[in-house]
Amino acid sequence: MNDLISMRDLSKDEVLYLIDLSEKIEKGECKPDMSRKLAALMFYEPSTRTHFSFATAMKKLGGQTITMRGTASTSVQKGESFADTLLTIAQYADLIVIRSAIEGAARYAAETVPIPVINAGDGANQHPTQALLDIFSIKKTQKKLEDLTIGVVGDLKFGRTVHSLVQALSDFNPRFYFASPSHLKMPPYILDDLTQKKIAFEEIREVEKYINTFDLMYVTRIQKERFADPEDYEKIKGSYIISESMLKEVKKNFKILHPLPRVDEISTDVDATPYAYYFQQARNGVYMRQAIIAALLGGDK
Amino acid sequence: MNDLISMRDLSKDEVLYLIDLSEKIEKGECKPDMSRKLAALMFYEPSTRTHFSFATAMKKLGGQTITMRGTASTSVQKGESFADTLLTIAQYADLIVIRSAIEGAARYAAETVPIPVINAGDGANQHPTQALLDIFSIKKTQKKLEDLTIGVVGDLKFGRTVHSLVQALSDFNPRFYFASPSHLKMPPYILDDLTQKKIAFEEIREVEKYINTFDLMYVTRIQKERFADPEDYEKIKGSYIISESMLKEVKKNFKILHPLPRVDEISTDVDATPYAYYFQQARNGVYMRQAIIAALLGGDK
Amino acid sequence: MNDLISMRDLSKDEVLYLIDLSEKIEKGECKPDMSRKLAALMFYEPSTRTHFSFATAMKKLGGQTITMRGTASTSVQKGESFADTLLTIAQYADLIVIRSAIEGAARYAAETVPIPVINAGDGANQHPTQALLDIFSIKKTQKKLEDLTIGVVGDLKFGRTVHSLVQALSDFNPRFYFASPSHLKMPPYILDDLTQKKIAFEEIREVEKYINTFDLMYVTRIQKERFADPEDYEKIKGSYIISESMLKEVKKNFKILHPLPRVDEISTDVDATPYAYYFQQARNGVYMRQAIIAALLGGDK
Repeated sequence: MNDLISMRDLSKDEVLYLIDLSEKIEKGECKPDMSRKLAALMFYEPSTRTHFSFATAMKKLGGQTITMRGTASTSVQKGESFADTLLTIAQYADLIVIRSAIEGAARYAAETVPIPVINAGDGANQHPTQALLDIFSIKKTQKKLEDLTIGVVGDLKFGRTVHSLVQALSDFNPRFYFASPSHLKMPPYILDDLTQKKIAFEEIREVEKYINTFDLMYVTRIQKERFADPEDYEKIKGSYIISESMLKEVKKNFKILHPLPRVDEISTDVDATPYAYYFQQARNGVYMRQAIIAALLGGDK
Repeated sequence: MNDLISMRDLSKDEVLYLIDLSEKIEKGECKPDMSRKLAALMFYEPSTRTHFSFATAMKKLGGQTITMRGTASTSVQKGESFADTLLTIAQYADLIVIRSAIEGAARYAAETVPIPVINAGDGANQHPTQALLDIFSIKKTQKKLEDLTIGVVGDLKFGRTVHSLVQALSDFNPRFYFASPSHLKMPPYILDDLTQKKIAFEEIREVEKYINTFDLMYVTRIQKERFADPEDYEKIKGSYIISESMLKEVKKNFKILHPLPRVDEISTDVDATPYAYYFQQARNGVYMRQAIIAALLGGDK
Repeated sequence: MNDLISMRDLSKDEVLYLIDLSEKIEKGECKPDMSRKLAALMFYEPSTRTHFSFATAMKKLGGQTITMRGTASTSVQKGESFADTLLTIAQYADLIVIRSAIEGAARYAAETVPIPVINAGDGANQHPTQALLDIFSIKKTQKKLEDLTIGVVGDLKFGRTVHSLVQALSDFNPRFYFASPSHLKMPPYILDDLTQKKIAFEEIREVEKYINTFDLMYVTRIQKERFADPEDYEKIKGSYIISESMLKEVKKNFKILHPLPRVDEISTDVDATPYAYYFQQARNGVYMRQAIIAALLGGDK
């Protein structure tokens, strides 16, 4: 493992290794040391939470970060190519974490520089560290990854998070229920892929009818910025809101995950129930990113 | 002590404890270790000096910081609630330092998250770490806190710094002289409070007449941004300027404090006199903030 | 050595000492420890690369940084003088690194504060750490500094980098060839200085005719922002482009240096040749800045 660009690059064994390493880091059984190591966080797209999560991961391992944001006040203004910027940063840092609105930006970076690159989201394409922290969270809550019944709710068309997650879980014999507004359905290429792999899935309209069969439910935000017409957003945003009243007869092991930020797709009255797991999920992201950094930089002793 | 939100929450003993701890940290007799600890600095209002002071305090203890500024490029744009932002940050950091223009923001944060919160200024309300570093500075310059004669000069109406300080010194039998332009006087509720506590104070117009009786003088900036009409500011700003010529017969132990930044309320010719203490006061702020962090995070060995 | 403001302040011995220290740091023979030390990076002018290089240098020595950018969200807005800002920062940090568009800003800072100051570029005046890393790069590539034949190409009028470098190399008996568009020639005061020191130089129009005699060639960007009329820039920018085809018969020890960012003055087909040294040069900058920090803060054991 030289870079982490796409879930498709990872074998099942590698995924299991990273989950195992995350668990050990959380428990303090493994303490990677990144002293005097530097991660360059190149964030060409705003993302507080992903940026903070990576910065936290690196700093809590004893390492350091330098952050490049946007293109203002950078050499890009002076006409420098993206390749030159990357090659220069690679002289300073031990690791590049890159987030960009452009699909393939992270792959290009990995092919350009000799140091490890982590994709922290490239447009609508991949966000593999999110998928990995989601799987880690599923493992922690269910004690297993195999044979789970999973509801996936919200914007399934534009949500790269759920695309990566669904692909990643395919190795573990899941049963999926996809609930979304009709024009925000899971893209056909993902459904085709599931069909080919003989994975059970169903597209549903109402979550309530199925929720008591779920081991877990993954809810995503319906992102305003994906809509050309604000009115379309207003029409949609109230759909698929999860409230406490829906959780009366769910399974004991049932958990709700959400990549955050949430707007109103999960009522705050859910937060105090034992089914809310989204804030712990954010914390899991730090452990998983520490595991990924350790795996790439070789400090995983 | 779980949080530091308001001076009113602190007992006299807690104040004295923090002063003692600050002294020990300054002398190197106590070296708290914040390695692998992370403070989230949430600055919703610009403040170079307070931000730098906290960042310095944490970093010189071996700790690390992550900074969130304003609301641009944050999840707030995406419609996230303040509570959710706080709960997410609390998954990453060990401590939150928050500055906001909104009164009560820090208290709300403390009630929302399980980790310690420090109020770094909430609107016109409280700025307790400033009050504590001021008291620490008074103790260092006067070798005591009791029975001091203190001039307080400048904008006494809007200056939260002097409000907190006057309240905090009330436990130590002070005598106050308040000098301000007539429409920027100390608010009645503070004067009432002093009367009730039987603390001697006098409102004066001319500083020069009284300065030779002062043990110390606390000067504040008359803040342009508090005036609706710029002309009112221009009329006022020259008043109460302290110059070297006023210091001919002051007490030997006399010191001038100022929370900084200064504009022209203290002439630069004062800087070279033994009475100028404002830059050292800024340095004291680092020691006091280190003491507060250590007290909250339990690293005060 | 208390500050680093201008190459003119450094003796030849001091330059050689810094080169030697940089080499030892690169080889790991010297490991300065900046734990719990703080560098304030005051960048009043955008400069990704210089900022990152200093931040990297400090952090990879175990130290920490705080960064002040521009004037927005700083005390300058509140009417604070530059001297007061400096004096306050000096209470927090152990070292100030300053970059400003104003000539003499760094010198003024050094005269104002008691802590060491490093000039990271003051307008068209000096950029001594760049000159030092350039000399360090020359030493590494040529194994010596004496008696070198050096082509200097590009914008020689406004390029402070080449001015500092030419002055710095004057101690080592160089032979210079200066190639630039006619209205971007090396300023007369520099040529006069070389004449007085009896250093051989020639102003040339065509690089190709002389390139095979060069030990190294220093290429600079023709900076768009220096031109009042964009058309003038467009006319000029294609001139003096270095391409692989020009390098057929260069000396074996020949290397191309460039302070970066590059626009198109060196074709990317040069990058894969053994003559391209500009990215390694950027890395050398980290070692040199570490050496300078260690020399100023006394951690050079």
